[in-house]
Amino acid sequence: MSSQPPPNETGTRSSLQYAQSLDSADPLRHLREEFIIPSKADIKRRTATKDAATKNDEAEPCTYLCGNSLGLQPKRVSEYVQRYLRVWGSKGVFGHFTELEDQLTSPWLDIGDDPKVPLSKIVGAQSSEVAVMASLTANLHLLMASFYRPTKERYKIILERKAFPSDHACYAVESQILHHNLSIDDAMIFLDPTESRNHYLPTSQILSLIDAHASSTALLLLPGVQFYSGQFFDIPTITSYAQARGITVGWDLAHATGNVPLKLHDWNVDFAAWCHYKYMNAGPGAIAGLFVHSRHGSKTDPTAADFVPRLAGWWGSDKSSRFRMENRFVPIEGAAGWQLSNPSAIDATAVIASLSVFEMTSIEALRERSLKLTGYLEDLLNSLSWDGRSKPFEIITPKNAGERGAQLSVHLEDGLLEPVLEYLEEECAVVDERRPSVIRVAPAPLYNSFEDVWRFVQIFHAACGKAVAQT
Amino acid sequence: MSSQPPPNETGTRSSLQYAQSLDSADPLRHLREEFIIPSKADIKRRTATKDAATKNDEAEPCTYLCGNSLGLQPKRVSEYVQRYLRVWGSKGVFGHFTELEDQLTSPWLDIGDDPKVPLSKIVGAQSSEVAVMASLTANLHLLMASFYRPTKERYKIILERKAFPSDHACYAVESQILHHNLSIDDAMIFLDPTESRNHYLPTSQILSLIDAHASSTALLLLPGVQFYSGQFFDIPTITSYAQARGITVGWDLAHATGNVPLKLHDWNVDFAAWCHYKYMNAGPGAIAGLFVHSRHGSKTDPTAADFVPRLAGWWGSDKSSRFRMENRFVPIEGAAGWQLSNPSAIDATAVIASLSVFEMTSIEALRERSLKLTGYLEDLLNSLSWDGRSKPFEIITPKNAGERGAQLSVHLEDGLLEPVLEYLEEECAVVDERRPSVIRVAPAPLYNSFEDVWRFVQIFHAACGKAVAQT
Ligand SMILES: Cc1ncc(COP(=O)(O)O)c(C=O)c1O
Ligand SMILES: Cc1ncc(COP(=O)(O)O)c(C=O)c1O
Repeated sequence: MSSQPPPNETGTRSSLQYAQSLDSADPLRHLREEFIIPSKADIKRRTATKDAATKNDEAEPCTYLCGNSLGLQPKRVSEYVQRYLRVWGSKGVFGHFTELEDQLTSPWLDIGDDPKVPLSKIVGAQSSEVAVMASLTANLHLLMASFYRPTKERYKIILERKAFPSDHACYAVESQILHHNLSIDDAMIFLDPTESRNHYLPTSQILSLIDAHASSTALLLLPGVQFYSGQFFDIPTITSYAQARGITVGWDLAHATGNVPLKLHDWNVDFAAWCHYKYMNAGPGAIAGLFVHSRHGSKTDPTAADFVPRLAGWWGSDKSSRFRMENRFVPIEGAAGWQLSNPSAIDATAVIASLSVFEMTSIEALRERSLKLTGYLEDLLNSLSWDGRSKPFEIITPKNAGERGAQLSVHLEDGLLEPVLEYLEEECAVVDERRPSVIRVAPAPLYNSFEDVWRFVQIFHAACGKAVAQT
Repeated sequence: MSSQPPPNETGTRSSLQYAQSLDSADPLRHLREEFIIPSKADIKRRTATKDAATKNDEAEPCTYLCGNSLGLQPKRVSEYVQRYLRVWGSKGVFGHFTELEDQLTSPWLDIGDDPKVPLSKIVGAQSSEVAVMASLTANLHLLMASFYRPTKERYKIILERKAFPSDHACYAVESQILHHNLSIDDAMIFLDPTESRNHYLPTSQILSLIDAHASSTALLLLPGVQFYSGQFFDIPTITSYAQARGITVGWDLAHATGNVPLKLHDWNVDFAAWCHYKYMNAGPGAIAGLFVHSRHGSKTDPTAADFVPRLAGWWGSDKSSRFRMENRFVPIEGAAGWQLSNPSAIDATAVIASLSVFEMTSIEALRERSLKLTGYLEDLLNSLSWDGRSKPFEIITPKNAGERGAQLSVHLEDGLLEPVLEYLEEECAVVDERRPSVIRVAPAPLYNSFEDVWRFVQIFHAACGKAVAQT
């Protein structure tokens, strides 16, 4: 790799050498080796398969800071998936139940159980409190079918909104309310950020809104980490405050799982759901995850008053008690009691492969590393010089590291986004944009290096410089 | 392959040579080459990866007649999946929207659309009437959320039951009824076969039950092909009869799709759902499929009286009309308007690979082949000789070929199942059992040969002979 000095900086902390020294001192630097990092040539060619030799500098890795949108591929996924294909190809239906000496996952009948232990460590749960199934929005629906049971008195759902109801969970909530023949104008209670630029939502504002609707709210459903601003909410405080007022509390952890440490069990969260394609690195649309607290999931007698009703399926039924309850559905204990169908084995295999990389460390160690990476990104961005001009961007993610995960959202001056994106793309710096003005930059805790962060900032600096000069 | 004469038979029609002549004359015989047929050694070894040389006869293919449970792997699945992994590995998030010269599927943003055309031919639908998403039981729930809207007058669901409510759709229906605070004793109406051994359900019996509950039934939900008996129901007659009485009609096509020709659009079916791991050969738990008739799916104005409500998700929303309806959910037209989440790309890739094999022929040609294969299986089973003893089994699947698909269910005399299964396993004849007495034998339309059928019958004959002698 080239080692030209950073264009506009002179201080030690902003040199490539310093970034590389941080990498050398990083106890988790070996984890990057577990991932396929696309080269610049990979990104630029118009094919997936390799073509002839590429220019030397194009063999360099791209600068991928987009794991908040799609995580990179762990090398093991290919090995695990090929083994899965070999089991299917050589055993057919016996793959459902035959233990093999060289198996990388359980037989398919039990493959849904394999992720439970590693996943429960990541979200801070008992292993029986998590299940791997379906997709994020589907799981939100299934969980709302259980945990949103509106009554005349309590029927509202508190949620937050960025700009459009089409963002993520919003349509799901709207349709749940309509499903119960309630009015969305009356029953959907939105948390609207008072600061419209940075979208910060202080805990106090959330608690006030809970107070304002305390007696009529059935459910609070918030993201653990907000996708736009990157704000990491105070889950324990908000959860217990709402629960003390009789409100059930669920969390959409799409941007939180694998990113920030969670303690879902100890925080007494009622339920949660997440995807595995962002910080969990299991591939686009990968089979999702959910959490149901043991105080709900342990109740398996469907005739008991405290049984949590649910949309049921044969895969969630407890075979051993099938005859006990006069043929009525009796669930498996725990989150698995919400399972509907036999899970996609290829999809579960990818999740298991990816989780095995998480097993090489701990979520606490990853968080420590992540705080350093993101702090370093923030420092470098804030110390860029602009030749007397004012800084052409603002970081809208909370400055308090306890209130954010890996991601920093950068709000650009009007008109800069398109030329900046063009430059970043040309230089193979991969980030995610939210038009009209925001880029989201996320050093992934598992695979990004301090050098990645350093390179991104160089490219971004040059991109802004060029864009500003043009406008 | 060995060519010793069949042990107990002398007639030409029951010779191996005859079976092989049927294969030679089969215009679709090349399709078998598209599949990985496990060898006997593959089945027997305790590993997935290959070990050292095996005995010569173990290199022979196993006799796999279990495609009704898990279809064999099309060879292309591996090529497609490896290409998917390469796209993810080399493009990262750009795989969502970058067209590649060597792509085997659309970019992931549109990958859910790729299966529509081939799949719609298989189920007899317009391409916009099908969607590939979620799993079978989940889709049944999502479709019931739309099409089971009980009122005071109409609230019952008619379904069929084999022995236990835990079989497949039953728990889903039970929980839907409970979800609406109705009584399952009152609202679940079961079709019980009068002939308890063969489980045959004459159309007349179904129509009578519809009549008996005509004014109080909201939904009829039946399997297209019954998993136990193999009976193929008269979908058009039953559908129109129930609809004429104001009943909505849905079909569970798990055992029908890819097996029998369907005309869901012309038959005016309201909705249907199926899996892709049986006759569709996309692998265990593969992402599933659903059908919504265009007369429902074409209604996209959520404020109109005839709009079909649904549990919604951002992946089913029509971005282009997002601003039209004051930010309310406006679906994509067609079955895609029921989509919730971005689909698993690896899973969709497997389905697309498998569908590309179906594209080499037509469902009509497959049906023609399937009728011959299953008829040949029936003939051979019925012409076996038993040394003066009575036949130790009975075929319980309808004799009328129009009332069945590929599968024949064979009811064995008491006590024979276990020893027969043991022998079949030893000889690598793979079928599916339903304890206490039934094996299900299904020559898959795409890959089984007449020789497979012949071999199975030889092995089964010997298995029964040995089992009878032991008892
Ligand atoms: C007729 C029928 N319906 C439903 C199911 C449930 O399928 P899944 O686990 O894919 O939801 C099955 C499974 O074999 C089935 O055969
Ligand atoms: C916060 C959040 N919730 C929900 C979703 C919807 O995810 P899916 O399409 O997997 O259901 C997303 C997708 O990115 C998300 O970021």
